[in-house]
Amino acid sequence: MHFTSEERHEDGVLSREFTLGEIPGILWTPRSAAPTPLVLMAHNNGLPMAQPRLRARARHTAAAGYAVATIDAAGCGDRPRTAAEEQARADLRRAMGAGEPVDEIFESLVGSMVERAVPEWRTTLDALLTLPEIDGPVGYSGWTALGIRLAVADPRIRAAGFFAGGYVPRAQREEARQVTVPLLLLLQWDDEGNPRQRALDLFDAFGSEEKTLHANMGGHVGTPWFEVEDGGRFYDRHLK
Amino acid sequence: MHFTSEERHEDGVLSREFTLGEIPGILWTPRSAAPTPLVLMAHNNGLPMAQPRLRARARHTAAAGYAVATIDAAGCGDRPRTAAEEQARADLRRAMGAGEPVDEIFESLVGSMVERAVPEWRTTLDALLTLPEIDGPVGYSGWTALGIRLAVADPRIRAAGFFAGGYVPRAQREEARQVTVPLLLLLQWDDEGNPRQRALDLFDAFGSEEKTLHANMGGHVGTPWFEVEDGGRFYDRHLK
Repeated sequence: MHFTSEERHEDGVLSREFTLGEIPGILWTPRSAAPTPLVLMAHNNGLPMAQPRLRARARHTAAAGYAVATIDAAGCGDRPRTAAEEQARADLRRAMGAGEPVDEIFESLVGSMVERAVPEWRTTLDALLTLPEIDGPVGYSGWTALGIRLAVADPRIRAAGFFAGGYVPRAQREEARQVTVPLLLLLQWDDEGNPRQRALDLFDAFGSEEKTLHANMGGHVGTPWFEVEDGGRFYDRHLK
Repeated sequence: MHFTSEERHEDGVLSREFTLGEIPGILWTPRSAAPTPLVLMAHNNGLPMAQPRLRARARHTAAAGYAVATIDAAGCGDRPRTAAEEQARADLRRAMGAGEPVDEIFESLVGSMVERAVPEWRTTLDALLTLPEIDGPVGYSGWTALGIRLAVADPRIRAAGFFAGGYVPRAQREEARQVTVPLLLLLQWDDEGNPRQRALDLFDAFGSEEKTLHANMGGHVGTPWFEVEDGGRFYDRHLK
């Protein structure tokens, strides 16, 4: 893990870009003498880690006493896509333009991205946990399909905050029953591209004894900021 | 409004029992020099205001800087029931024992209780707002059917936290579209007596631009304590 740049913000948070082999990432850490728990913040599908809203959430969470890390996994951000992923994205644009069903295209595209992202996130987690400034349980935040896979595969994940606004492949919908960590699912009630009933079915399917659904009015990008604060308290309950 | 007893608690909260004509109530106020906003805390249907969990919630909310008031409205707690209400309760016990449908019985029982409770809550609100220790916007917490009626009838109610675990008569389900204040609906995902889909439909129906649903695992009485704290932050956003 090589740090390639660093910036100290006025709230005391230090943000550092890093590379780990081919994987580019960002680590935010609070001004803290003691090691802190870690939250992995994964953005949905194709969004780059540089997205301002993700950075703002990460800063806020770090200022509250967490190390926060994100990466552009394979196929995300500027990372090269496979020929099949490029084809699926082209098919998706065409199908959306024509008003045709898109589920099967998402199934193959998101399925492929999850498969390729999981080992990179685990490698990143291994490296992060060797840093002296990080210790304690690990939380996950963001991209649901990836998070389900990670939470099932990696017992180091102890609490998960998921955003329901993204396609979840059938394999991960099945796996949801095996997720048993405390979880918080965020739903935008009128998310244009993501049928509400699927999110409710997914919430029902999770195997966790403690699971909470927060639904708010509005479309895909309308999640109110107070949910970032609610999310912070969710992590405080389980990681501190 | 006559105060009949008072008790100062270790958290500084003063709780006072009062009567207002035939209406018995309790008012909790924080140790505060300035007047505070008010939260009306209504318990579902037949539960008495003396219920320990309601008292604990009221104390917690008052300690956070609110005046909190509850009453036993007509037909609630020890208050006399009408002959029709007594009959409906007997019918309910019989139907539940026999595994028969209960919706129509609830329709008449809860409908009657809401009709009788609304004027008493408004009278109580009038009296509370004359007290020097109370000023500012009014919030509502608890019994959904009553709260819908009050929020539609009384513009002084500025934010509403509802608990989905109670029968909502058809008239109030219709009226939900006219509720426009910010609201937080609490749902127990596996509430034995209250079908989940009805609560989701009700959430969908509310006319409020800002509405949030919090769903948690478990049955009717399993709401986790952290929801009291989340509720507090909801009132802080809208009443302070």
